[in-house]
Amino acid sequence: MRLALLLLASALLVTAEERINSDVNQKLRKEEAANSQVMKTLHMLTDRYGPRLTGSPNHEAAAKWARDKMTEWGLKNAHLESWDFGHPGWLNERASGYVTAPVKDNLVFEVLSWTPSTKGAAKSQAVLVDPPKTPTQEELTAWLAANKDKVSGRIVMVGKPTVVPVNFTAVAKRMDDEALQRRLSGQGGPGGPGGPNRTPPAKPEPGKLTAAQVNTQLDEWLVAGGALVRVNDAAMAHGMVRAFNNRSYDLAKVVPTVVLRNEDYGRIARLLDDGEKVEMEFDITNHVYPEGKTTYNVVAEIPGTDKADEVVMLGGHLDSWHSATGATDNGIGSSMMMEAARLIQSLGEKPRRTIRIALWSAEEQGLLGSQAYVKEHFGTFEEPKAEFGKLVAYFNIDSGTGRVRMANVFGPQEAADVLKSALDPFADLGVAGASASKSRRTGGTDSTSFNAAGLAGIGLGQDPIEYFGTTWHTNLDTYERIVPEDAMNASIVIAGAVWHLANRDEMLPRFTKEQMPEPVKPGRD
Amino acid sequence: MRLALLLLASALLVTAEERINSDVNQKLRKEEAANSQVMKTLHMLTDRYGPRLTGSPNHEAAAKWARDKMTEWGLKNAHLESWDFGHPGWLNERASGYVTAPVKDNLVFEVLSWTPSTKGAAKSQAVLVDPPKTPTQEELTAWLAANKDKVSGRIVMVGKPTVVPVNFTAVAKRMDDEALQRRLSGQGGPGGPGGPNRTPPAKPEPGKLTAAQVNTQLDEWLVAGGALVRVNDAAMAHGMVRAFNNRSYDLAKVVPTVVLRNEDYGRIARLLDDGEKVEMEFDITNHVYPEGKTTYNVVAEIPGTDKADEVVMLGGHLDSWHSATGATDNGIGSSMMMEAARLIQSLGEKPRRTIRIALWSAEEQGLLGSQAYVKEHFGTFEEPKAEFGKLVAYFNIDSGTGRVRMANVFGPQEAADVLKSALDPFADLGVAGASASKSRRTGGTDSTSFNAAGLAGIGLGQDPIEYFGTTWHTNLDTYERIVPEDAMNASIVIAGAVWHLANRDEMLPRFTKEQMPEPVKPGRD
Repeated sequence: MRLALLLLASALLVTAEERINSDVNQKLRKEEAANSQVMKTLHMLTDRYGPRLTGSPNHEAAAKWARDKMTEWGLKNAHLESWDFGHPGWLNERASGYVTAPVKDNLVFEVLSWTPSTKGAAKSQAVLVDPPKTPTQEELTAWLAANKDKVSGRIVMVGKPTVVPVNFTAVAKRMDDEALQRRLSGQGGPGGPGGPNRTPPAKPEPGKLTAAQVNTQLDEWLVAGGALVRVNDAAMAHGMVRAFNNRSYDLAKVVPTVVLRNEDYGRIARLLDDGEKVEMEFDITNHVYPEGKTTYNVVAEIPGTDKADEVVMLGGHLDSWHSATGATDNGIGSSMMMEAARLIQSLGEKPRRTIRIALWSAEEQGLLGSQAYVKEHFGTFEEPKAEFGKLVAYFNIDSGTGRVRMANVFGPQEAADVLKSALDPFADLGVAGASASKSRRTGGTDSTSFNAAGLAGIGLGQDPIEYFGTTWHTNLDTYERIVPEDAMNASIVIAGAVWHLANRDEMLPRFTKEQMPEPVKPGRD
Repeated sequence: MRLALLLLASALLVTAEERINSDVNQKLRKEEAANSQVMKTLHMLTDRYGPRLTGSPNHEAAAKWARDKMTEWGLKNAHLESWDFGHPGWLNERASGYVTAPVKDNLVFEVLSWTPSTKGAAKSQAVLVDPPKTPTQEELTAWLAANKDKVSGRIVMVGKPTVVPVNFTAVAKRMDDEALQRRLSGQGGPGGPGGPNRTPPAKPEPGKLTAAQVNTQLDEWLVAGGALVRVNDAAMAHGMVRAFNNRSYDLAKVVPTVVLRNEDYGRIARLLDDGEKVEMEFDITNHVYPEGKTTYNVVAEIPGTDKADEVVMLGGHLDSWHSATGATDNGIGSSMMMEAARLIQSLGEKPRRTIRIALWSAEEQGLLGSQAYVKEHFGTFEEPKAEFGKLVAYFNIDSGTGRVRMANVFGPQEAADVLKSALDPFADLGVAGASASKSRRTGGTDSTSFNAAGLAGIGLGQDPIEYFGTTWHTNLDTYERIVPEDAMNASIVIAGAVWHLANRDEMLPRFTKEQMPEPVKPGRD
């Protein structure tokens, strides 16, 4: 009884302090129910402009479309902010692949980005080489020398096929209470989604090469040895293919390279094991866009009134990988943020502070667009620019199609408490609270570019649905993977929370100079 | 207490009566653990000879390989038994497809079997037509006339895209107790796996055309109208594609036809909805094999001794559809049955009765191979041939990679009781018993060809794993989908049960003339 009273009193206190505008929240819900644009936006970003690889004309067209659409919705100052990506743009235009002997089949694969085209159809007997996994430089050098005559004029499969056992464990779709509480208690990353490849790789044993180092030397060896095509094993179940990039971004340093679905890779490897002569053929047309060296973040605003110089930001990355159309990563995140801005714009009320939406490029290449923006506009806590003190917070979303379940803010607990008050009215939509983070480590997604600078990046935690298991960077990341109701609900929640931070009397509590964590040097793990 | 004693007495009675040879069962387990060939067999049937479409050289090569392999294992009289399929063989040799404007992407699709090649690369603007679903003939005729000018020289998408919502329900992998008891109580089909398309379609309303009738007329209309390619929506999640056949088997009656993954179909349909001009291109090379009109069942024997004229059969269909290599349907079933025969052969003991394995063709076209065999060798209860009275039972397996969980036998309860006694020693491998069936209806799989004749077809029920949801007739039905341990355990169980029926004093109890159910006329539902 005593406790209940205390809790009640505490709730009243927060409510009183935060003065949530229930009327606005109701309007946001009604507008979304009546006039949602979020799936139409997603359709354009995916079906029409996907994949939106940074530096490609697809990405630029998507950015311009988003800019123009937000202008049409009434947002102000919508524009592209250019920054120096430093690499050309790249797109695959068409690719076909076949096994032609001793069996005939059409191959399912994706092209590794920033790799060259074949010169017409590349046909050859396939060879599988199996380089050592964690060699010393001496061991790798010896292996490369011993195998150098195998690859000339050949389609080269690199590595034994991965055996991906039939999975008997159901994938979690909604975040369960345990996972939610873990996230709310500050575990589960600095607010971003993280991801299988975002974990820093284990440090190699002393004297051993990293996988990336081995890979780079293999690529050079294949170029020098005159290989026709490099074939990697997708190593995923159910025909899923995940393809990243040639890390050098230099097409001269690699041969045409594909990631072949595990079923096809395994089949061919098993036939080779039988001593069969397997013939393959790939015909790949990629296109390079030198103008992609300059790329763009999309920025638009809803101007504030009495506190117009203070800014609440929201955003996500617009760029994608190229194996599909980039729906869950992060077409839907961009669409939800645009939708949240549209909902606020539809209120017919002006916020006190300026609300600014940003859709980043080159998140997938290392959060580069958001880092460039933070550097340009805000600097860091240690070396601030004029605007540093004016940013209330930056909301980011980048974990797929699921509902928003919680928020993690870089700052003191008081900042999380404010955010929780703003989110509590949406408990019926699945939101369970907010947590605070002290980490200035980058990783996962763009909110951490703000955290790194000492700014209040807010990472929104979402229901996983099929994100890491199925859609994340794969050939299945399409419009069909989206749960429209979840995307609509997320848009409402974000709009409500942004509106609250844009209109409360105070800015969001920040770390004092004494509380501010030390910056994390780039590359530190 | 009384009940317990009664049960105990009953158990002793059965055990005493059935005299299970535990020594043999132990030897079978040991041999499988030490020298399993089942995955090697599967590898050859899938990787090397898949897809094994009836009438194709792939199927014939697989049949010959199986025959020779069983001869190598010591089986006798291994041979191909020809029968008249009546249709040419067909295989796709290569196929590529692209959307070329306003976006560029490689399409994921399968070719419908028994459809023609394109004449080189077929390129055109895409058009989507949406014929009525259950029209009267008058309505369809009017629709065809009204739309006839739309398809000339075009790639034609037929029907609006299916919206396949994100699935939040985990797929069952193992058969749970409830499902098992349902199967044991005689529900869940006549012993075969059934399947989504095996349920007789709902009868059309009077005066309305069936989907098949509409489809046939659409095909004729597309040919007459000069369409370049017909594109159907795969209507499945996660890029899965399931492709059957042109039901006429006559390539002149259809245009080149593909089943496009739902993601690509949906994307293009949505772009067309925007008013975009979408250009597509397909280049399809199929090959027709006139010699496929004659096809083959593979038959081999382990000769009996004192009761050599009585026969216990086991088998499954060797043929497959063509979207993948036919692993779960039914490469693994064929492999398990071959493995069961090999295990028995390895005992170094001769069975009393002859054990005969049969690997059917054209199951996928309507159980045709097993029906031809039953007609040729056994006739029916009503019009028996000499061998009719000599067949003890026919064991069939055709539900994917899962463990054997139960058996369903056409015959009186006493037959199921015998079978249960033979299976009980394998309870540790997941087998839970046997049920009896009175249905002479064909369907599902080849055991029902025996049931229809009044013979003791035995359908083996298996854990579902991913069968109907993922692998059944899809582009994902590959070697990778197999659970090796389950396949090994199934082989042991089948070998043990076959051995028991081949060596007990009596044949399996049959229906008396009075008990025998009436035959079911073909086509009756």
